[in-house]
Amino acid sequence: MKKSLKANSLLFPNPAMVVCTYDANGRANAITLAWGGIAASEPPAVSIAVRPSRHSYEALRRTKAFTVNLPSVKHVTQTDFFGIASGRDIDKFAVTGLTPVKGEFVDAPYIEEFPYNIECQVVHEVELGTHTLFVGEVLNVKIDSDLVESNGKPSWENARLLTFDSMSRSYRAPGEVVGSAYSIGKKWLAS
Amino acid sequence: MKKSLKANSLLFPNPAMVVCTYDANGRANAITLAWGGIAASEPPAVSIAVRPSRHSYEALRRTKAFTVNLPSVKHVTQTDFFGIASGRDIDKFAVTGLTPVKGEFVDAPYIEEFPYNIECQVVHEVELGTHTLFVGEVLNVKIDSDLVESNGKPSWENARLLTFDSMSRSYRAPGEVVGSAYSIGKKWLAS
Repeated sequence: MKKSLKANSLLFPNPAMVVCTYDANGRANAITLAWGGIAASEPPAVSIAVRPSRHSYEALRRTKAFTVNLPSVKHVTQTDFFGIASGRDIDKFAVTGLTPVKGEFVDAPYIEEFPYNIECQVVHEVELGTHTLFVGEVLNVKIDSDLVESNGKPSWENARLLTFDSMSRSYRAPGEVVGSAYSIGKKWLAS
Repeated sequence: MKKSLKANSLLFPNPAMVVCTYDANGRANAITLAWGGIAASEPPAVSIAVRPSRHSYEALRRTKAFTVNLPSVKHVTQTDFFGIASGRDIDKFAVTGLTPVKGEFVDAPYIEEFPYNIECQVVHEVELGTHTLFVGEVLNVKIDSDLVESNGKPSWENARLLTFDSMSRSYRAPGEVVGSAYSIGKKWLAS
């Protein structure tokens, strides 16, 4: 039996993306966003949805650049803070003590202490009611070097990247693996 | 210390979205997609990225309608199968025994056995290299009635919705809660 809910934007899981820009004063700003995701594979692209009222919005329109920084579970309080405070009022980096580093490929800073940093150039803006969806082409990805294994590939288990759960309004650690992708479903091919 | 990786489309977490459409023969089709996410709050909207080579692509262009069905961990093999098989060759519903039900608000079927179903109307299409990003306005949401609590609100803990982990190419169960959103970060406001 199904029950209809009012149309809403609940989906699980959501990424806890800390998006960084330079504001009009050249100050590094960070905002936590969970609306968005991967948009294409080649060229790689991600989408982020931002309300025009947010301080980051002006920076995104002006610089056409941002970074997506994925926090580890140990950064959960800073991540939540970046979502509830405004960069108009507070220097979020000064308050949290995190380090903004100028991007190598785009005019936006990344967060040194976060394990995974994606440098993006805005290539599309789609206006959608409450939010504008910015599509950013990924120009570079940085990862903590201690997460790179001896074969040169990243080990994600140790990154412990945060999940945003918009349904229960909480942050979660990665859950247990329940199946291998592109593999476990082959049993139905044989049937 | 940071190491630069080749630009890529890795992000964690990704939703395991089973997207359903009707093909040109009126047959229900399902494809598993992990590229996409929430796009706006009001009107609620989601994005899904689809390669033009996929069987679902023609249906999305023609019907301008789709459903996003979120699987529980118990549907992990069917979810993986929907991603690796093509609806051109196989009736995926017949093979898995899952039930397509005609949407109430859009010309697309939803999966009865999956706990959470989102009915969407395509409102934007953005061409991005390998993928077209379809933005769908959410017209209705259905949920298994046994997941609705006595206060009328959904209980998500029991839904055990699947996460796709594109980094390790696996599916995960929801992880433990490590913090309350819009709350745990307030400590930095006071500092």
